[in-house]
Amino acid sequence: MTTIVSMTMTDIRFPTSRELDGSDAMNPDPDYSAAYAVLEADDGSRGDGFVFTIGRGNEVVVSALAALERHVLGRPLDGPDDLAELSRSMVHDSQLRWLGPEKGVMHMAIGAVVNAAWDLVSRSAVLPLWRYVSTLTPEQIVDQVDFRYLTDALDRDQALAILRAAEPGRQVRTETLVAEGYPAYTTSSGWLAYPDEKIARLSREAVADGFTQIKLKVGGDLADDVRRLGIAREAVGPDIRIAVDANQRWDVGQAVAWMEALAPFDPWWIEEPTSPDDILGHAAIRAKVAPVKVATGEHVQNRVVVKQLLQAGAIDILQIDATRVGGVNENLAILLLGARFGVPVCPHAGGVGLCELVQHLAMIDLVAVSGSTEGRVIEYVDHLHEHFEDPTDVRGGRYRAPTAPGFSSRIKAASIEEFRFPDGAAWR
Amino acid sequence: MTTIVSMTMTDIRFPTSRELDGSDAMNPDPDYSAAYAVLEADDGSRGDGFVFTIGRGNEVVVSALAALERHVLGRPLDGPDDLAELSRSMVHDSQLRWLGPEKGVMHMAIGAVVNAAWDLVSRSAVLPLWRYVSTLTPEQIVDQVDFRYLTDALDRDQALAILRAAEPGRQVRTETLVAEGYPAYTTSSGWLAYPDEKIARLSREAVADGFTQIKLKVGGDLADDVRRLGIAREAVGPDIRIAVDANQRWDVGQAVAWMEALAPFDPWWIEEPTSPDDILGHAAIRAKVAPVKVATGEHVQNRVVVKQLLQAGAIDILQIDATRVGGVNENLAILLLGARFGVPVCPHAGGVGLCELVQHLAMIDLVAVSGSTEGRVIEYVDHLHEHFEDPTDVRGGRYRAPTAPGFSSRIKAASIEEFRFPDGAAWR
Repeated sequence: MTTIVSMTMTDIRFPTSRELDGSDAMNPDPDYSAAYAVLEADDGSRGDGFVFTIGRGNEVVVSALAALERHVLGRPLDGPDDLAELSRSMVHDSQLRWLGPEKGVMHMAIGAVVNAAWDLVSRSAVLPLWRYVSTLTPEQIVDQVDFRYLTDALDRDQALAILRAAEPGRQVRTETLVAEGYPAYTTSSGWLAYPDEKIARLSREAVADGFTQIKLKVGGDLADDVRRLGIAREAVGPDIRIAVDANQRWDVGQAVAWMEALAPFDPWWIEEPTSPDDILGHAAIRAKVAPVKVATGEHVQNRVVVKQLLQAGAIDILQIDATRVGGVNENLAILLLGARFGVPVCPHAGGVGLCELVQHLAMIDLVAVSGSTEGRVIEYVDHLHEHFEDPTDVRGGRYRAPTAPGFSSRIKAASIEEFRFPDGAAWR
Repeated sequence: MTTIVSMTMTDIRFPTSRELDGSDAMNPDPDYSAAYAVLEADDGSRGDGFVFTIGRGNEVVVSALAALERHVLGRPLDGPDDLAELSRSMVHDSQLRWLGPEKGVMHMAIGAVVNAAWDLVSRSAVLPLWRYVSTLTPEQIVDQVDFRYLTDALDRDQALAILRAAEPGRQVRTETLVAEGYPAYTTSSGWLAYPDEKIARLSREAVADGFTQIKLKVGGDLADDVRRLGIAREAVGPDIRIAVDANQRWDVGQAVAWMEALAPFDPWWIEEPTSPDDILGHAAIRAKVAPVKVATGEHVQNRVVVKQLLQAGAIDILQIDATRVGGVNENLAILLLGARFGVPVCPHAGGVGLCELVQHLAMIDLVAVSGSTEGRVIEYVDHLHEHFEDPTDVRGGRYRAPTAPGFSSRIKAASIEEFRFPDGAAWR
């Protein structure tokens, strides 16, 4: 039996605001950060997980990680049953639950610990996470899911039926995935603070690199957006998809008016047009901006909001985030909800290590849940990968399936040392 | 000019789980707690605010309070403009916003600091908070509100119209309020872990004390609930309203079935039948359980969710909480939303100091916003008031209007000393 004997928390921050990489209409100067947790077991095995934040407040998440120690230390962690029980014990802690429930700092911290546990277990199985989940039975996968508050849209039997329907094709899809990779799109060209010529150059480079979709940040100033989108459209031609992302900048009426002005440039989707909490707002916007698709999810707090976005027909694209919700367990629930409603899941990535994590989730979706890459694409941002022991491998506009054991979540020891806040060399 | 020169944070916990006061279907053993903030100004004035939690994790909120220091220290705090600016600067901090946005630990901490600032300013004006707000013009009140994400349901002009319509009657309603108080209901009789005879006795006492509404916790076990509700109904007779509160225990279908079984006892409202995030779920439940009313709000994270609950026709009763959202400023937005949709606001209270705080908010609603007590009632729980310098005064089933300057939010120095966690005498 493997038992967790220690949990270590570290505040890691990269001073990204110095270069304005990652700038958008809501986040002008992020310092990409990670509230980082390492679980160690009595057999020497280790699992790493983290919450991505953008700077200030990362220490609050570290404090939330510490509050979870009582659920972690001494816990057996040998396989799927233990993973389900760990998730349940933290999410259902009746006192901690008051701080959400299932949202914000406390829930994100739970997600990091859950993800660290999956990293540990899949490493012990000597399989990359996406392959480890592919070895689980439909019953074992369904047992990871907390169906509380979901049963009016998805119950255990319906989830089982989805997973069983995908079971026969797992092997073939795995082989295709390993051979061909998973489609990606890039946001590296479109940060809000980039000058026009940089947008044009990076957009052309993205196409040359094999991407068939790029994304631009919008929502700062309408005239700027019209000009920038025009530059990008001219750079990539008519056949490349250009998604736009407003990072929650607008009210409902504003979103509709703004997207009307951008419509001539044929945007593929509008991402986060308004508050991630505004289910009915997204539905109202979607009704007005079609055929432009509506996408959201990176800030959606939990499966209950996802359920409603789908029930309300509010979105065309369901974006998931690896460190916003309660970790792999809740993301399995969200993948199942997407499959149930026939809405494609396109993960949000970038930040610190989100590309590394979400590739596994998208590949789980392909192999074991939806069984398809149709209309699906993983975000890619060429940023901070050098700090990870098992960085993403994106070539020809596609994520290559990870081969190293685990969740690709481990940051290099030297990077932790250098960017530890506030005493690492980068901050002294 | 008054300038904030210090902010002190304290982790205060009352060992209430030892008596099972406060027990309900989701919270079997709460230790009622406060993450407590004191602002001090250069002129010696002081304001107190706090987040109510139920134990574990209170230290995480204290850490979130500390993250707000940069927005507080050196800030002028002389009147409504400064209050609006303080609220805005914290809510719109682009890096801290990532931890929500506007939800969970970080948002609750912002609310505590906002509330402390209103305590300070109204004390300096030598007025109880509810009276201080009554001295503000409709424009000054509207300027407290962040209309972002609200304008599809309520914009500044509509809010101004509501406040202006209420302005002529302010004086008369103030006089009536001072003379007669504000209607209350009591939850003290109905905690889930109380034995049957205690429920019967406390229910009879509540009626004798002048309450016309009581509330029972439900959702643990259906047979128990049928028996307990029967006992309470028999104790109070047919004319007293009995609300029931499931504390988020059910899924949609379960809520409907459970309420069918309780219907013979004529429950007045069902409170928190399911997840506070489930707007569409509440709407579905409401359609099925009428004429029983649906109430929620104590765990509703922010004004965006409130807006949708009202847009969707999901609730009959809008409950507000003093320490869940972004403080007085966001609660003014919520009062205005309630008025806009004609849904009565009935504050959630209990815990640590929630009765002390929400009485002011309900009285602001009466004097300056909705202008009515019709269908409105403030929760009362007879619990922990002795630790407050200006405790509530509830007699004859009514809250008496506070007369002491400030927000009634200050905990006695001796109580802070005794219940400070983990080093106070109560915890050693």
